[in-house]
Amino acid sequence: MHETEPAVMKTKSTPSVGENVGTKPVIASGAAGNAKQSPASGAVLNEIPGGVTAPKGFRASGIHCGVKKAKKDLALILSETPASAATLLTTNKVQAAPVVLVREQMARSGVFRAIVVNSGNANACTGDRGMEDARAMVAATAAALKCAPGEVLVSSTGVIGQYLPIQAITSGIDTAAAALSPAGGHAAAEAIMTTDTFVKECAVEFDCGGARTVIGGMAKGSGMIMPNMATMLAFVTTDAAVAPGPLHVALVRATDRSFNRISVDGDTSTNDMVAVLANGASGSAPVTEPKGPAYESFAAALEHVLTVLSKMIVRDGEGATKFIEINVTGAADDASAARAARAIANSSLVKTAMNGEDANWGRILAAVGYSGIEFDPAKTEIAFGDLPILRRNYLIEFSEAAAARVLHEKEIAINVRLNGGEGSATFWTSDLSQEYVAINANYRT
Amino acid sequence: MHETEPAVMKTKSTPSVGENVGTKPVIASGAAGNAKQSPASGAVLNEIPGGVTAPKGFRASGIHCGVKKAKKDLALILSETPASAATLLTTNKVQAAPVVLVREQMARSGVFRAIVVNSGNANACTGDRGMEDARAMVAATAAALKCAPGEVLVSSTGVIGQYLPIQAITSGIDTAAAALSPAGGHAAAEAIMTTDTFVKECAVEFDCGGARTVIGGMAKGSGMIMPNMATMLAFVTTDAAVAPGPLHVALVRATDRSFNRISVDGDTSTNDMVAVLANGASGSAPVTEPKGPAYESFAAALEHVLTVLSKMIVRDGEGATKFIEINVTGAADDASAARAARAIANSSLVKTAMNGEDANWGRILAAVGYSGIEFDPAKTEIAFGDLPILRRNYLIEFSEAAAARVLHEKEIAINVRLNGGEGSATFWTSDLSQEYVAINANYRT
Repeated sequence: MHETEPAVMKTKSTPSVGENVGTKPVIASGAAGNAKQSPASGAVLNEIPGGVTAPKGFRASGIHCGVKKAKKDLALILSETPASAATLLTTNKVQAAPVVLVREQMARSGVFRAIVVNSGNANACTGDRGMEDARAMVAATAAALKCAPGEVLVSSTGVIGQYLPIQAITSGIDTAAAALSPAGGHAAAEAIMTTDTFVKECAVEFDCGGARTVIGGMAKGSGMIMPNMATMLAFVTTDAAVAPGPLHVALVRATDRSFNRISVDGDTSTNDMVAVLANGASGSAPVTEPKGPAYESFAAALEHVLTVLSKMIVRDGEGATKFIEINVTGAADDASAARAARAIANSSLVKTAMNGEDANWGRILAAVGYSGIEFDPAKTEIAFGDLPILRRNYLIEFSEAAAARVLHEKEIAINVRLNGGEGSATFWTSDLSQEYVAINANYRT
Repeated sequence: MHETEPAVMKTKSTPSVGENVGTKPVIASGAAGNAKQSPASGAVLNEIPGGVTAPKGFRASGIHCGVKKAKKDLALILSETPASAATLLTTNKVQAAPVVLVREQMARSGVFRAIVVNSGNANACTGDRGMEDARAMVAATAAALKCAPGEVLVSSTGVIGQYLPIQAITSGIDTAAAALSPAGGHAAAEAIMTTDTFVKECAVEFDCGGARTVIGGMAKGSGMIMPNMATMLAFVTTDAAVAPGPLHVALVRATDRSFNRISVDGDTSTNDMVAVLANGASGSAPVTEPKGPAYESFAAALEHVLTVLSKMIVRDGEGATKFIEINVTGAADDASAARAARAIANSSLVKTAMNGEDANWGRILAAVGYSGIEFDPAKTEIAFGDLPILRRNYLIEFSEAAAARVLHEKEIAINVRLNGGEGSATFWTSDLSQEYVAINANYRT
């Protein structure tokens, strides 16, 4: 089976109006009302406008406090009632102070009220003072919101190795708390951006055990995007009633099929975090175990939100000019398919070929070859979208003109059939452009 | 101990005139007479002019036969007497026809006479016809040289997925055989180039158990260069008398410390091969076991030749504007140090920062962080050359002006001290430039 596409995207037999099907990437553009049938629960999943304040009982704000010169740099999310929380944190051994602190917080409790995030400074490689600053952000947030410090999650993103301007941030937290609003999700999503070129947020409504329930999310990406988490920030809110245990299970599964399947440049960062708060304000049936119809519909909706955000991150990869979906099928198992897809997604040679709109299938096959999986190169088939490029036994039959047309598109699907089993996986990546080099050659200066 | 630098480079207490010492890369520029003391054997190792025809009893040629439009595309190396052979072949699961054939040849015999190589076409992903063509190259070479087909090694490099113009090549083999000369090493080195911008060859003379002995080599690289072999072509000749067994052991050790320690873009190819022929024409004492003074001096000299060729390949990396040496010390063991150094060498973000001459040490530390090794970030120190950038406990004290001066150099040493053990490793890589992207975006067209 195809393990990566969320269940809600599998209804290829009954596509909704305006829905892309087949091998082309399905990207949520933020358009509302794009109904998708969920085969798991039979419930309808609708994309709706908004982000983290789309669910009931959440307020947010995004302001400028002075970490950056002029742009918004401080975001606050508040659940009006205590919410279950789940987080996934970077796998990098170098962990920013807020990551260390969140790990401590999560070890003590599964119930939280607020998330505070600054951009412009990662508070990473800042030692004891960095830990003090992270705790000061939590304390200021708790004081401003009149909750306990143990109920506040904290996150930072930006330059490594510089101390936070903590006075500006703690003053800013008071301003941000005063600005909290049920319409503040967009401002919050703006405030977590670094080199992102557009705001990344999305929301869905779905039936969760009989109640209309909403999940909203926001993310920042751009550069340093690679599989195995460790890559970006995403904050998700929901008015579903899900206990911390099943919330964590759903988050792990959804992340494995979304954020862990994207790659921009293969690097991982010190600050990455995905956090979800579930406050139950929709009145949906409480989910206390990772099974059953309500859980399944919630998990599918969460996966949908994370997949949409993941694709937005790839689309906004530094210097990206192409959105590339890599589908590997016919592998011995799903893990092998994922390994092959990851090798293709991370290959600088494949990514530069896509940038140059060059049908260089040899680099794709070579990437599978060094991925370490077992497969028979002579059985392998490669297509760009629907256009066959390489058939079994190295039969090559395509016109350069036809290939050029397909590769000239902004969205390209690389379809690799190994014809050696039932395993499959999908990855998303961007091309490697001269612009990427220009951006990253002078990031600090 | 420092496992990567060849023994001949370790005599920092008694540097020869003109020899770079310390953390700066030591690059053989082809200048002759650069004597280096070998502490292992006490023998002097001299770089001398020339390549594969520098040792006694070898002839070579390089001609244009018609695979490429106009440039040389066919190289031949002949040992006048039967020679011991050792090869290392790509680890990619997709193996070009000549690689498959050489594996067969090596399984049958350890004694060879000739190597035939074409550039411009990799004869990879060419199925049964590709195998026939590789055998035809061997047969034509054997006929032209009046030796057995079982005594000929074959290699190809270039575009993947196209059939060889085999008639042109077999005719060319006759021409190349007629052109064989004891001065033909340079022409042969020219004939194996693809996107290389300069010829890569070198030779050394050394004392091998009392006899003046020579090793010569040539290589092609450029793009698709990454650790774990699987990366380039290198052909080495020597008039030492070394049996196939110890020759293989020496080749594995030398390759692990040279070609397996370089990285340009992290991809590996389908055609890579290192081959060495040893014909004993120097009259040196026969080496029949991988031990003893004669073996050690041979192994050290081989490692020197391979290291020089490796650095030439990095220096000629596609679009490279900087030569970067990465020294990781203080790791738990050498393997951990190598893993950390490889992560730094392969990081697109580190490589673009070097291209932009940006002292972005955070990316270096982050790369060590996701390399998977155990280390304490707070104990880590980073220097560019002799300029300390990051000290323990994240103390950062450097002037941007001083860093800019160091990073403006064409050769940069990134020195990472983990302060957690005795393990060390050195890697060599290039920066990632916009030119790299431009070259690789349009390789086929």
